[in-house]
Amino acid sequence: MNQYALLHTPDSRYCFATGKKELVIRLRTAKEDRDIRVFLVYGAKYEFQMKQNEIEMHVHYEDGLYQYYEKKLELEDVRLAYIFRIEENGKEYYYSEDGLTETYCFPEAFYNFFQMPYINPNDRLKTVDWMRKAVFYQIFIDRFRQGNLTKDTSYINMQWGDLPTPKSFAGGDIRGIIEKLDYLKELGINAVYLTPIFQSISNHKYDIRDYRKVDPQFGSLSDVKELVQKAHGMGIRIVMDAVFNHCSMEMEEFEDVLKNGKASPYYEWFLIDGDYPDPERMNYECFASCNYMPKLNTANAGVQEFLLKIAAYWIKEADIDGWRLDVSDEVSHDFWRRFRKEVKQLKKDCVIIGENWHDAYPYLMGDQYDSIMNYAFTKACLDYFARGKFDARQMAEKLNGNLMRNTEPVNDMMLNLLDSHDTHRFYTEIGKNKKRLLAAIALLVVFPGAACIYYGTEICMEGGYDPDSRRCFDWEESHWDRTVMQEIKKLLALKQKPVLQYGTVKIKEEEKMLFVERKYKKDRLILRINLTKETRQGIDPDGYQIMEEQGEMA
Amino acid sequence: MNQYALLHTPDSRYCFATGKKELVIRLRTAKEDRDIRVFLVYGAKYEFQMKQNEIEMHVHYEDGLYQYYEKKLELEDVRLAYIFRIEENGKEYYYSEDGLTETYCFPEAFYNFFQMPYINPNDRLKTVDWMRKAVFYQIFIDRFRQGNLTKDTSYINMQWGDLPTPKSFAGGDIRGIIEKLDYLKELGINAVYLTPIFQSISNHKYDIRDYRKVDPQFGSLSDVKELVQKAHGMGIRIVMDAVFNHCSMEMEEFEDVLKNGKASPYYEWFLIDGDYPDPERMNYECFASCNYMPKLNTANAGVQEFLLKIAAYWIKEADIDGWRLDVSDEVSHDFWRRFRKEVKQLKKDCVIIGENWHDAYPYLMGDQYDSIMNYAFTKACLDYFARGKFDARQMAEKLNGNLMRNTEPVNDMMLNLLDSHDTHRFYTEIGKNKKRLLAAIALLVVFPGAACIYYGTEICMEGGYDPDSRRCFDWEESHWDRTVMQEIKKLLALKQKPVLQYGTVKIKEEEKMLFVERKYKKDRLILRINLTKETRQGIDPDGYQIMEEQGEMA
Repeated sequence: MNQYALLHTPDSRYCFATGKKELVIRLRTAKEDRDIRVFLVYGAKYEFQMKQNEIEMHVHYEDGLYQYYEKKLELEDVRLAYIFRIEENGKEYYYSEDGLTETYCFPEAFYNFFQMPYINPNDRLKTVDWMRKAVFYQIFIDRFRQGNLTKDTSYINMQWGDLPTPKSFAGGDIRGIIEKLDYLKELGINAVYLTPIFQSISNHKYDIRDYRKVDPQFGSLSDVKELVQKAHGMGIRIVMDAVFNHCSMEMEEFEDVLKNGKASPYYEWFLIDGDYPDPERMNYECFASCNYMPKLNTANAGVQEFLLKIAAYWIKEADIDGWRLDVSDEVSHDFWRRFRKEVKQLKKDCVIIGENWHDAYPYLMGDQYDSIMNYAFTKACLDYFARGKFDARQMAEKLNGNLMRNTEPVNDMMLNLLDSHDTHRFYTEIGKNKKRLLAAIALLVVFPGAACIYYGTEICMEGGYDPDSRRCFDWEESHWDRTVMQEIKKLLALKQKPVLQYGTVKIKEEEKMLFVERKYKKDRLILRINLTKETRQGIDPDGYQIMEEQGEMA
Repeated sequence: MNQYALLHTPDSRYCFATGKKELVIRLRTAKEDRDIRVFLVYGAKYEFQMKQNEIEMHVHYEDGLYQYYEKKLELEDVRLAYIFRIEENGKEYYYSEDGLTETYCFPEAFYNFFQMPYINPNDRLKTVDWMRKAVFYQIFIDRFRQGNLTKDTSYINMQWGDLPTPKSFAGGDIRGIIEKLDYLKELGINAVYLTPIFQSISNHKYDIRDYRKVDPQFGSLSDVKELVQKAHGMGIRIVMDAVFNHCSMEMEEFEDVLKNGKASPYYEWFLIDGDYPDPERMNYECFASCNYMPKLNTANAGVQEFLLKIAAYWIKEADIDGWRLDVSDEVSHDFWRRFRKEVKQLKKDCVIIGENWHDAYPYLMGDQYDSIMNYAFTKACLDYFARGKFDARQMAEKLNGNLMRNTEPVNDMMLNLLDSHDTHRFYTEIGKNKKRLLAAIALLVVFPGAACIYYGTEICMEGGYDPDSRRCFDWEESHWDRTVMQEIKKLLALKQKPVLQYGTVKIKEEEKMLFVERKYKKDRLILRINLTKETRQGIDPDGYQIMEEQGEMA
């Protein structure tokens, strides 16, 4: 047995509660150790020395190096002690906090058993249930649709449809989205993620001057309320973008500091090296190296209160269903903890989605976000569908590894995406291969968690990196590929099946194809993707197949 | 290279801030991979794709299976991106979030580099500096000394010095401790950890009726204030025991629920299955299976407020220097977060020490405790000094593994102990071998963090498990082994040397002896322990040696 590969840590992604009295335990072992048997030896913490139960564990996931045994347990006593017993070639081993040993001393187990000390309900991450079936549509507002034709359009500096530059304004607005709710509904969308709508001088509005006001380019508070109301009436949820890491240098409070320096009551709201912020010397912390986006000091109580009020305001005022958190990994854990409490207290199923491009486990332990934008999934899809870096086996391994980064409740709320306003368009990355686009969307839908479609994907919009990934939506229907659109609709509709919301998942390579199986009660859904050059099991090169079974299985 | 052994996770014990602009990065590799070279490739997050620095890392720790490379970095930009480059036999590898690869694509690094996204000051665990040099004395109050001879002694049911039973009362009190502060000072103690002092019917007082009142058996509020004041005058800090997981069934609030059931305003303070708690049926959550210790529901806002007020009260009223948290792992993370904020706001260097017998990393990330009672250290000492389960090499490995469980700030505040009121006495466990006792205390002092001596260890008190480990202190000086006591004093005094407070640590086996080296600036201190049957390098069997060097080293 490969001892080096063994990994288990309690109160982590390897042991977490999934219910009041339910938890999941995982053990990682080396992939090549296929002939071992793993047993969970467990019991009520205060009786474990005398009395243990034992149950066999099975492999649920397999990445490049490891296999992951998993067991879901229903508990009587929510204070659990456990160790692992491993059989190999007739020999027996124990795996505890003291590592792998040939014997285990139960009378001294209290020193080195693993434990779930107590499932405290206020620590447990509860799944926002609608995320399991969410099909998101991300809208970059300036480029989706102009609905209000009577507004002051003097800021618009491009023709709808021209290629955008970093400073282009095309005129898209909230009214445009309201007009197209039917279109989204028809497409199978039940959640919209809006890039920022607040007052800002840029087209993207990630540099915000006033978090309380809707930018007049986009509309008014009443437009936003109307959007949310109408969307809710159609079963569509609205998630807004919380840009809390930084603001615009034109925000009133920063302007006050520019003017009054240390004498300003807002001086501590920012991270300034010196008496005054100096945009030229950039002697203050910023987003990236953009002097016009000063970083907010989220360790400051005043900033915390200010931002919490904004978070609450839009929930109370506009009844939004979630916040996507911009550059969330650079904001303090401490702030996100307060943010979560504020948000969840106002609306329990308001979802919190971080923009963390990396392993975000420390933010996903139940006290901060529910979910992140799953850019690791994006990267895997690029490596598989676009770059040919992965074959089906490697892709299966990568996707399993992705699932093993987080707990089950987090995976069920993960915002999976192929692209966004911060990447190249996926369709462009795959060389405008429509079959591959459809196969990738099939995977997006079948993978656990929410699926997020970047606006225009359904009409095969193209685009490189920012600003090119932010082109205007082409509403000329004759330009659309209706066949592709129809197939995307069909795929998105699948997300409403319970098997894709609650089903267990198994991902592997089978006959050089990617194989994803979901199972729930008596239902089973299998996705196969063939990126080889030959037709396999009736599936064309670059094609996919979805098989569904209901009722009793073999 | 053994890929299975590689481990790094950002924002964890493998990457943590140690200062405003300082952090430590660790990489775990297999121990047998001695011929590899590891380099940290790092840069400012927003420039990393274009510009990287590189620095070699070195092995600082080695446990049974792994070696741990470590590097402390001073940063300009507190947003750090990094990966590892590993050389082996002229071949080159990269280790990133995507695992081990032969090439690394820097232009797409933002997808898979490791990162410290931003060192937010409100997330960073700051070391309570006095813990580095703390020599604790744990006092089980009823058995240490009776100082007040005029109090109502009707509760005392044993002769001082008789063997205790679970229900014995010997008469020890706060006045007794005040009287013996000089004795403690003389011994080299600079911190006292008191088991609970609040109103309770038991001798141990872990079942508290009233958290606001000092138990009259032990004294009064003014006694406690006097104790703290006098101790502070002598440079001795006082840490009290916070029993917040559970209370006594005689606590007013629980009695109200017993009487009024669901109609009681305190019904939700407890976790009751039914309309009324029924001690016979035990239909409510308790500590262990003790119906007289109902568990407090720390998810309840009322309970949180109640306990926070108590935590604050004793800091404000008596100026205590820390809280030791009883059964802390069964209390919610959410509560401990509020607790930390409350405590640290009142007294920044008030230490918070959890009673977690197991890997407690999820509580030690900066938002909850500072430290725990290091029972894993205790267990290692038992296996090495008492049971002969470990030779010097295995002990070195175990101690290194212990250090690798936590970040450096936590290790510097760790409460290391050989025994407590919850274990057998260490001296009894080692078969009353005084040489081994001294060697173990030497290790306790030289190991990073605070040393904690259980009362009476210095006079070689004996005792098995509770209640036997809680015998009366023998104040008859003629019974004391002055030689042992003198040597213990000498050892404890060492903790005041900066090299033992701030020094790096290296632990290994050398010539079958345990070798512990601490280094700080130009100072070096080496401890060697010889548990073999032969004299080695002039060190007797069961003996130890401490060597100190000052000034320039070779």
